[in-house]
Order: sequence, then structure tokens, then C-alpha cells
Amino acid sequence: MLLNRRSILAAAPAAAAATVFGAPAFAQGTPAAAPPASGPQQAPGFYRYKIDDIEATAINDGVWLRPLADGFVKNAALDEVKKAQEQAFLPTDVTPIPFTTTVLKTGGKIVLIDTGNGNTGAPTSGTWMANFKAAGFDPAQVDTIIISHFHGDHINGLRLKDGSAVFPKAEVMVSAPEWGYWMDDGKMAAAPEGLKGNFSNVRRVFGPIAKDVKQYEAGKEIAPGVTAVAAPGHTPGHTAYVVSSGNGKLILMSDTTNHPALFVRHPEWQAVFDMDGDQAVDTRRKLLDMAAAERARVAFYHAPFPATGFVAKSGSGYEFVPVQWMPTI
Amino acid sequence: MLLNRRSILAAAPAAAAATVFGAPAFAQGTPAAAPPASGPQQAPGFYRYKIDDIEATAINDGVWLRPLADGFVKNAALDEVKKAQEQAFLPTDVTPIPFTTTVLKTGGKIVLIDTGNGNTGAPTSGTWMANFKAAGFDPAQVDTIIISHFHGDHINGLRLKDGSAVFPKAEVMVSAPEWGYWMDDGKMAAAPEGLKGNFSNVRRVFGPIAKDVKQYEAGKEIAPGVTAVAAPGHTPGHTAYVVSSGNGKLILMSDTTNHPALFVRHPEWQAVFDMDGDQAVDTRRKLLDMAAAERARVAFYHAPFPATGFVAKSGSGYEFVPVQWMPTI
Repeated sequence: MLLNRRSILAAAPAAAAATVFGAPAFAQGTPAAAPPASGPQQAPGFYRYKIDDIEATAINDGVWLRPLADGFVKNAALDEVKKAQEQAFLPTDVTPIPFTTTVLKTGGKIVLIDTGNGNTGAPTSGTWMANFKAAGFDPAQVDTIIISHFHGDHINGLRLKDGSAVFPKAEVMVSAPEWGYWMDDGKMAAAPEGLKGNFSNVRRVFGPIAKDVKQYEAGKEIAPGVTAVAAPGHTPGHTAYVVSSGNGKLILMSDTTNHPALFVRHPEWQAVFDMDGDQAVDTRRKLLDMAAAERARVAFYHAPFPATGFVAKSGSGYEFVPVQWMPTI
Repeated sequence: MLLNRRSILAAAPAAAAATVFGAPAFAQGTPAAAPPASGPQQAPGFYRYKIDDIEATAINDGVWLRPLADGFVKNAALDEVKKAQEQAFLPTDVTPIPFTTTVLKTGGKIVLIDTGNGNTGAPTSGTWMANFKAAGFDPAQVDTIIISHFHGDHINGLRLKDGSAVFPKAEVMVSAPEWGYWMDDGKMAAAPEGLKGNFSNVRRVFGPIAKDVKQYEAGKEIAPGVTAVAAPGHTPGHTAYVVSSGNGKLILMSDTTNHPALFVRHPEWQAVFDMDGDQAVDTRRKLLDMAAAERARVAFYHAPFPATGFVAKSGSGYEFVPVQWMPTI
């Protein structure tokens, strides 16, 4: 399974050049805007909302159409997974896994939570920069980047394939246990083959800025109104966040679940990317329980865009209820 | 109740001038584009998808925040309605009723199904033209406009408050029984006070083009791939549509339900705007049953944007499952 993911990650750059749906082609060094429309385009993938004084913007980075037969769920039969997708009116040959990061304007700063796939993701991803710019943002103005964990779809937006940095002035903040795990050469040497590609990619992305990266601890307010919440299991230092302002609150779930139609509905299911599956399930149940009990606004990195809504208890699992799209902010 | 609606309609033009969230201010005769952004804006409210060879675009016209205490549901207690909204994570002081029309590119023509509120709707509506233009469309290029029924939020986009026509070359097609009812002076004279405003508005909108309006019958293909389906109850000639192309199919529900969190979940509930409540419930159950049995793609005029998805049976009612937003078309 992990080897599978690794080979997909390795193959992705070539595939990305195909720009299947007008994804931005990144030119030498500088992220380019999307090419001129050659036909009808989808609306830009951003969505703005407020958490009291904090302005949040969901920025979509496209989707990965992951073949279902590749064993996405470690502890459920393929037929059960297909059934769950069918019940959610999703295709049953692929899982359409969307990517949506969150930008916060808080305390006068522009703060990103994760960065998307950059130019090294699936061919139907890589639209982040075009959507970020369509929302009126400029990568040169980003003050702070908070990284939830070190999988490629969260960190590759920091540094393009050619090695260039995308956010020139941003301070980069990472989870201390995540950094401790992936930057440990002993752990890299002892890792199964399938994980080594990710260890290498972490070094590619963070190596040139290693001395400037700021490590944060869970339980602390790490940016104005943003508190880190330990959410281990998916990766050793995987982190969720509580964003608070006045009476407003948002729980940013990161990869506490992958696609809600599978892992919110069936929190006991373990995704192939959950490094410690049992711990991931414990964390998932704890955070989904909290969100449901509080009726808190949530955001999931892999929920359908705009990837924000609520969690309700439903049978032995939960249900993700997307927010009603509003024309106002 | 109807008097209430009438007074809201009457009050709306003045309120609309407030442009609460940057709604387009319509200048003399010609719909203007949205004013320059004075702050962070929401993404444009359009969403494109395909029905095989037909390209559909959902165009949002904002939302009406209807006070819940105004008796929106004729045959349910206020507490029950509040509970349904709470279960859907909606506010419980207002029902946020969105407006989303559908544009079809079919057989080389641009075909609109309904036109939105124009400049005579609630202050948080009236964004239709800005969203239509953001999607790359031009009102001068519209070939055909199909009207589902004669409530103001569906027809007022045809003609601005100052009397000017918005779509210079478009053929306007209306349901024959709808035309027969509202254009009948005898029915107008006999109508309760609360309905007279709507009779007048129908004359305001259609009067100048009465001789050119084309009446269509249910059961017929009225534009390439578009078949009219009788859906009476909401109004006497209220019409739904089946849009077909190759293996693709979309059931355009029009106002067969108002907000899905209320009337898909509780099909037996009657909205204050359902002129024949019992007939509206019969029609609603029939069409929701059909959609659920066929697992057909649907669009609802008053569902949360992009207002397209699927219908699943759920207990004694149904559930609206929104489509997963896709960056591709």
C-alpha cells in the first residue's frame, strides 16, 4: 500500500504537466497564474467566511481521483467501501479526494494552514496558486505558514519541483513531534521502503530552511487565535487546530479524517495513510465527538470543497453536514 | 401569510438599494456589473457541470433571510420548523432561502431556466447578473428563457424595475396553464388580496411582450434535451424539467420543494407559497420518489448553492445530498 502511494508520488510530476483541466503550469522558479481559459472554466475554488474577527478563506487545490481497488481502507472490504461511496452518490471506481487548505487573516497577519500539492501532485490537483490569487492573495505577503503534518499534499506547496521557495517572507511553523520523527536519520534508515520517499521529500522541502523553521507544541496558541491540538495517528506529530475569536470557533481537523463519506461515516476505518491506524481511530473519535457535542464549525482538509461545515452523530458513526454556501462573508 | 409576502415584495425595491453585500446596483435600463470590491468578496456564485453533451451552469442570485416567525410552513408548529433547521445546522431565527437558476448550453443555444429576482428582490439577493457575467455569459446572447412559474423570484430578472427588458433577443417560454391562470382578469378580480400583487407583477413583467410569449405544454420537449414535467400545486402551472443528453439526465425540480432542510426532509410540510398545499405535497412526493428511485441528478431552485445533487430516502422523508464540488467541468 505505502509503496503504491510512493510510486504515485514519484510519478506525479510528469503527470502534472498534462494540466488536465487547466491547472496552472508552474514556470521556472515562479508560480504562474492559470493559463488563459480555452473554454468554459469552473468558478475559482475559494470560499470566505468569518470566525468573528478572523477571516477564513478555504482554498481548493483540486482533487485526486484515487482508484478504489488500490486498498484505500486498510480494515474494510472493498465492497463495503464501494457501498459507502455509493450511499454518498460518489463514483465507485475512484475515491475523489479533494484538497482544501485554510487561509486566516488574524491579528493583522496572513496565516496559511498547510500549502497544498504545489506542482508535484496528482494531475487534477495543483490549482491552489490560481485559486489563492483569485481570492486576492499574494504569496509574497504571507506572514506565517503552519504545517499540520509532513505528507506531500500538505507541504509541497512550500517549494516547487525546481527547488524554489514559494513564500519568500513567511515564517514556517511545524509540529515538534512531526519534525522530530521525519528529520531523524535513524528513523529514516529503519523505515520500511514505502516510507523512505516521504522522508526524502521532507528533507527536500525543509532542508534549505531547516535552521529557520519554528517548532510548535500542542496546547499552545501558535498564531493569534490559533491553538494547536495534538492529533496523532495519521502521522506521529499530526496536528489539528482550534481557531477562536470572540464567540466564534472553528475546529480545523487537518487529516483527522480523509474523505468524510468514508471516515466520518465510519470513524473505525483506517486509511492506508494512517501510520498508526489504531491511534488514528482514537484521535478521530475524540475530535469528532468533541465537534458533535459542541456543534462546532469544522473544516476538513479532504472534505468536498468548501470543506467546512458541522459534525452530527449518526448511528455508530457521524455525518458531515456541509455549511450552506453564503454570498455574504 | 400571503399579505405578508406581498408587503415584503413591495418593500423589497427600497431595501435592495442598500446593497448589503455588494449586490449589483442596476443603473438606468442596463444591468451594471458589481461595483468595485471595497473589501474581501465572496467567490462568484456560479458552478458548471455537464449532462453529457449539455453544459449546465448554476447561477446564484443570493439569499433571502426570511424571519422564521412569519409562518413559513403552513402545517407545522414553529418549534418543529426550528428543530428541523437546528438539525441542519441552520440559524433558527431566519430561514436562509437561496436562489439558484440554471443556464443550459444545448443544441448551440443558450437557454435559461428562470431568471432570478432582478432588482426587485430581498436586499441580500440581486447578484444574478454579476454571477452570470462572471461565468462568461452575456444577456444579449441568451436565445431562450424558460419560466417554471410566475412568482417574482423567478420572473423579475426578465424586466427591471424601470420597465426595461434584460434579454433583448431571447424567446420567452411559459407554461400554458400558468399563463392561463395569472393572465385571467376574472381570476385576478376574484383573488384574495394577498395574491393581487402577484397578478399585477405578472402583468408588469409579461404585458409588454404578451404577444411574443410562447406557451408550452407539459410532456413536450421544449428546447433541445429539455422536457417539461407538470408539477402543479406550488402554483397552478408550476413546471419541473427533465434535461437529457446521451446517458446524462438532470431533474430540474424548480420549486417542487423550497429549502431541502425543511421540505425534502419533510415532504408533507406545506410552504406558505404552495397555493394548493395538498396538491403540492402530492407532486413533491411523486418527484422526490422518482429522483430517489432513479438515483438521478437533481437541481432545486431553493437548495444551498450550487443547488445540485441527489435525493435519498430517509425515514418518512428524504434527504438532499449535495454533489461533490469538482474543479473540472
